Amino acid sequence: MNRARLRDLGIVIGTYPTGPHNAITDVPDVRVGHHTLIYDEPRLARTGVTMVLPREDIWHDYAFAGFHSFNGNGEMTGLPWLAESGMLGSPIGLTNTHQVGIVRDALVEYSVRHGYTRSFFLPVVAETYDGWLNEINAFHVDKVHALLALESALSGPVTEGNVGGGTGMICHDFKGGIGTASRLVALEEGQYTVGVLIQANYGTRAMLRVDGVPVGQIINGERIPVLARRPLQTGSIIIIIATDAPLLPVQCTRLAQRATVGLARVGGTGHNGSGDIFLAFSTSNHLPAQGTTFLRHIKMIPHSHMDRLFDATAEAVEEAILNAMCMAETMVGQDGRTVYALPLDDLQQIMHDYRQTGDKWRLL
Amino acid sequence: MNRARLRDLGIVIGTYPTGPHNAITDVPDVRVGHHTLIYDEPRLARTGVTMVLPREDIWHDYAFAGFHSFNGNGEMTGLPWLAESGMLGSPIGLTNTHQVGIVRDALVEYSVRHGYTRSFFLPVVAETYDGWLNEINAFHVDKVHALLALESALSGPVTEGNVGGGTGMICHDFKGGIGTASRLVALEEGQYTVGVLIQANYGTRAMLRVDGVPVGQIINGERIPVLARRPLQTGSIIIIIATDAPLLPVQCTRLAQRATVGLARVGGTGHNGSGDIFLAFSTSNHLPAQGTTFLRHIKMIPHSHMDRLFDATAEAVEEAILNAMCMAETMVGQDGRTVYALPLDDLQQIMHDYRQTGDKWRLL
Amino acid sequence: MNRARLRDLGIVIGTYPTGPHNAITDVPDVRVGHHTLIYDEPRLARTGVTMVLPREDIWHDYAFAGFHSFNGNGEMTGLPWLAESGMLGSPIGLTNTHQVGIVRDALVEYSVRHGYTRSFFLPVVAETYDGWLNEINAFHVDKVHALLALESALSGPVTEGNVGGGTGMICHDFKGGIGTASRLVALEEGQYTVGVLIQANYGTRAMLRVDGVPVGQIINGERIPVLARRPLQTGSIIIIIATDAPLLPVQCTRLAQRATVGLARVGGTGHNGSGDIFLAFSTSNHLPAQGTTFLRHIKMIPHSHMDRLFDATAEAVEEAILNAMCMAETMVGQDGRTVYALPLDDLQQIMHDYRQTGDKWRLL
Amino acid sequence: MNRARLRDLGIVIGTYPTGPHNAITDVPDVRVGHHTLIYDEPRLARTGVTMVLPREDIWHDYAFAGFHSFNGNGEMTGLPWLAESGMLGSPIGLTNTHQVGIVRDALVEYSVRHGYTRSFFLPVVAETYDGWLNEINAFHVDKVHALLALESALSGPVTEGNVGGGTGMICHDFKGGIGTASRLVALEEGQYTVGVLIQANYGTRAMLRVDGVPVGQIINGERIPVLARRPLQTGSIIIIIATDAPLLPVQCTRLAQRATVGLARVGGTGHNGSGDIFLAFSTSNHLPAQGTTFLRHIKMIPHSHMDRLFDATAEAVEEAILNAMCMAETMVGQDGRTVYALPLDDLQQIMHDYRQTGDKWRLL
Repeated sequence: MNRARLRDLGIVIGTYPTGPHNAITDVPDVRVGHHTLIYDEPRLARTGVTMVLPREDIWHDYAFAGFHSFNGNGEMTGLPWLAESGMLGSPIGLTNTHQVGIVRDALVEYSVRHGYTRSFFLPVVAETYDGWLNEINAFHVDKVHALLALESALSGPVTEGNVGGGTGMICHDFKGGIGTASRLVALEEGQYTVGVLIQANYGTRAMLRVDGVPVGQIINGERIPVLARRPLQTGSIIIIIATDAPLLPVQCTRLAQRATVGLARVGGTGHNGSGDIFLAFSTSNHLPAQGTTFLRHIKMIPHSHMDRLFDATAEAVEEAILNAMCMAETMVGQDGRTVYALPLDDLQQIMHDYRQTGDKWRLL
Repeated sequence: MNRARLRDLGIVIGTYPTGPHNAITDVPDVRVGHHTLIYDEPRLARTGVTMVLPREDIWHDYAFAGFHSFNGNGEMTGLPWLAESGMLGSPIGLTNTHQVGIVRDALVEYSVRHGYTRSFFLPVVAETYDGWLNEINAFHVDKVHALLALESALSGPVTEGNVGGGTGMICHDFKGGIGTASRLVALEEGQYTVGVLIQANYGTRAMLRVDGVPVGQIINGERIPVLARRPLQTGSIIIIIATDAPLLPVQCTRLAQRATVGLARVGGTGHNGSGDIFLAFSTSNHLPAQGTTFLRHIKMIPHSHMDRLFDATAEAVEEAILNAMCMAETMVGQDGRTVYALPLDDLQQIMHDYRQTGDKWRLL
Repeated sequence: MNRARLRDLGIVIGTYPTGPHNAITDVPDVRVGHHTLIYDEPRLARTGVTMVLPREDIWHDYAFAGFHSFNGNGEMTGLPWLAESGMLGSPIGLTNTHQVGIVRDALVEYSVRHGYTRSFFLPVVAETYDGWLNEINAFHVDKVHALLALESALSGPVTEGNVGGGTGMICHDFKGGIGTASRLVALEEGQYTVGVLIQANYGTRAMLRVDGVPVGQIINGERIPVLARRPLQTGSIIIIIATDAPLLPVQCTRLAQRATVGLARVGGTGHNGSGDIFLAFSTSNHLPAQGTTFLRHIKMIPHSHMDRLFDATAEAVEEAILNAMCMAETMVGQDGRTVYALPLDDLQQIMHDYRQTGDKWRLL
Repeated sequence: MNRARLRDLGIVIGTYPTGPHNAITDVPDVRVGHHTLIYDEPRLARTGVTMVLPREDIWHDYAFAGFHSFNGNGEMTGLPWLAESGMLGSPIGLTNTHQVGIVRDALVEYSVRHGYTRSFFLPVVAETYDGWLNEINAFHVDKVHALLALESALSGPVTEGNVGGGTGMICHDFKGGIGTASRLVALEEGQYTVGVLIQANYGTRAMLRVDGVPVGQIINGERIPVLARRPLQTGSIIIIIATDAPLLPVQCTRLAQRATVGLARVGGTGHNGSGDIFLAFSTSNHLPAQGTTFLRHIKMIPHSHMDRLFDATAEAVEEAILNAMCMAETMVGQDGRTVYALPLDDLQQIMHDYRQTGDKWRLL
């Protein structure tokens, strides 16, 4: 069976409608670019860079943002200023653990070269560890790769699976990588979109659940073997949440923490080796980095209207992780290590059977 | 069908074994006491106080502790010192939202009267809101009730459901209240117990899941009606986690955040009106409040061994919430409002059918 | 010499002008009330309650706020929701350590009785410890005292020294208590006021500095003796910062942390026994607790314009602490314990001499 | 007058004795290395890298640590894991703002090449901005410079002023850079050392105080001109605190926040453009990254004994900043910009006069 997104298998997570692409790019102005490095010589590469561009001129037109660390065994640069100011003024880079620095400095150089930075620049770059499949210590990523990812950033559909920063990732003992999803939320104030992009590299087979169904336990582990001899403590998930709902920084922080709910539903428990760091930004308000008008006029929704955004975020995170696994293909990496793709036909049938059980009960 | 704990219905959450009482009191030295106020005249009371005593002499023999706020629309006194010191030197009181103060000051008076406090005392008291069933603004709780709960604290089985601070609570549109559960975790260092006690008062019917099964959606809402006209934004859950594993404060904080996982699995998303505050303490190390030996000798497990404690905490929280609902009985409160108990026969049959579906797949 | 405020002694802190009353009440709408309990029979009372009312209808018209804990050995209720929402919807009570609860519940009852609370209410009450002078374990404060403080809250000049919550407090081994100060800050956006009110009960004699001058060391300790046999570890300072500058919650949090600067200049180092908790709120934006218009329109100054507010806050905190000491009178408390007032004539002459030294240099 | 350390000018900060070198290296096992880049062609360099090595084998033998962000307009990588675990397993790199990434990745490569890292590595690298004197966007720092700094790390005296990461820094409108100081603290448990190293690049002339004396205001600004046309909002200070006192992570965090006190005394207020991030670590406990014994045996001092460490930290920070200014020499940078050294003869005489004023009073 060819790879397909979860929803194309007839499996629906939650109750909110998706945006047109069921992707983080459904949030207007958000763009995503990938640069993927897959080659075997001279040293084997299964890695890359993904860039989320909150808006085209994020360098001068900041967005409110917040973050949450569910388990901080990972890196996301730029956090002190995010915490202090509640503002995001940088693209968000995703790559492998050992090359956060070069991607970070590449963004500085890009920013300087384009005259975007008057004095200093504090980019946001996060990571997960692809060193089981990828020869991570060959340090394949160069500055140019970061910039190729950035300059290729587009609206519209987002490539998922073995792509960009997600190329060499592993999720619940299946092939992982980049996934995305979105939800539309109708509030009294208007309709808003919540979009999520994740780089998924965490979890054990036994914990995997799809819409509550313990798929990881009931897929035969002999047919699709779990990864023998793989060191524990090397997983992580980075979750980026975008919305056009007008949120203050404190509200972005609240939204970021809700990613935990979606992750927990799929089977994440924030294991010790996992860098589970979540960043949420709102594109609604525009905060000029420099400007002649001094007072900023900001919009916000009341806190009491955030529940639907919370629920939508949890749904979108859940689906984005599953999309990553559904779209990622089986990959062979260093030393012939093979990570298998989630078997979609099994998944489809399992979910069908469970739904029938539920449907029967819904009528009683 | 009489009320029963989840496990007595044949429904097992997770894979870790429970302690002998499947209760927070399986952690040695931990005691729990309740004082319950149920009467209709002169004003209707459906409230009370629950006390968790981390150890008999917690006033002089502090425990390491940490907390996590998943959604802070609630109160837990004592947090600044918990955050600063990582130490807990107080019983933990649970009551209704409007009487946190009196329970807090009752603990001060008790401590003073017994000579436990040389200078000042900063008690820990948390709350959820029972004002739909209980005439909360009759302020039924008096200092003596707090002390009766404290002085009745015992080891062994813990009464669950409509009791103590949980008396008037509502959970996923069924009757909620106090619930507890425990897990045994075998580490290389030895066997440890994780015990959880929750006061559950959050959530919507549609979100309720039991071991992943969407029970809230498939129980017929006409037979067991959801609560009409109940204001939203009044839910909350307080989660207390105890362990005898030797944890540092930073590790207690990590454990506290893992309560989110168990809560998310049952159907919590940290709605805006919810005070979802989690406190974890470790009884292993003894920190004398005063003392003649100056250097403290502390034990800790390595961070890398915490994964099983994380998983066990998530399981115990999930089961403790479900125990609260399984043990709580239908209650009639002010203005004749009725909150129905979770129907256990339905629950048992639904879970049976789903398990059969899963078992079929496990063989393929 | 009669008691006088620092500025009336010719001692000026910093460079920003003060508001008309050099008080927190210079921020429009802010009111302060005290209720003071001083009597010797049947048990000796040197305590009370102070209330800061951010605006008349704070219950329905919330203000943005943030807090910082410099050393959390103290209590301030209401912090979880402040952290989560960035909003303040309560008067701020200040009292002694052992009666935070009753003042907190008194605010609940007041709010309920006036119909201000539809469902639940989470008041903000903080404390410092007056148990050296006051028989704190006689629990003198009753609910009525909290409400008398609240209902007497006024704009205009604020009584300082041995009054309200500050009645029995001790600061740098002189008599402490309530102090206040304000600063006017001209930004491009307009002129704003920063007002500070503190309840000062911390510090050692040797560390006291006035505008950098080590006054605590050079005032003869035999003439004005330090307090013998007083247990350490019982100090604290609560700092409340108000402003009409339009700040977001994240900006209030930043402002709150700047109180540390003013405190450090006077001689605070956040000792272990000290509950040094700082709360900042901005009255500029109005956040209706309930409302028919959904989108909130908010104003904020850019972060880059906050420096003058930071500097002004540090100055106002420094002066407010010194005002508390300058205005507090020598007090005799339980067991005949005497805490001496800061000798103002000495202070005035010392500062005069130092200023001359500086003036000489300014001309070189 | 030649450059000299503050104490060699007869100016003493505080009351605690210093260690033998009055440097962070007085804490046993701590080493410091610098690599300095000063040249004018092809593009002008006034920058470098400083490395603080907490102990020789920090990669395998972790130390407890904590941090505090006083104003987060800066970068320090590695914070999520520091926050989560309370452990430091990396050297601490200090460099300029735009090259944090390359120094960070250089530490990864070094660690990999030496076989120190089994799976992944999360280095700690911080920065301040030297772009007024240094052509920062020439990106002078290469990986080899980071490793030269690391490999040259030594015990014993530490070079201060225009060296390593501090080369091009500016402090209170005088030449800044690297400074260090230490204090000895006798507790009942034994004698401990607190050592501080700072990279100082913050502050305005008018705010500079030396032991409370407003030196910045009374040094004639025409003789030693302030820096005209220099953009504001580009300052920062990174403060590293080391101690051999046995502290838990939560206690390191407390110590880190006390750096604010020393900084405030010199004249820092955490301006908006400033990245004021403080890291404290304790070398006393040894936390093996891997190991065969599972239970860790840890020592800690009681919280109640931390006051002297707090006071000593504040003193050492104050003196380390002043040492940086006293040791830094006048520097000419890009576009002929000149930053003047603090005039030591003026400083010495001013402090002498003030001390005489104080001494006179001490006798009254």
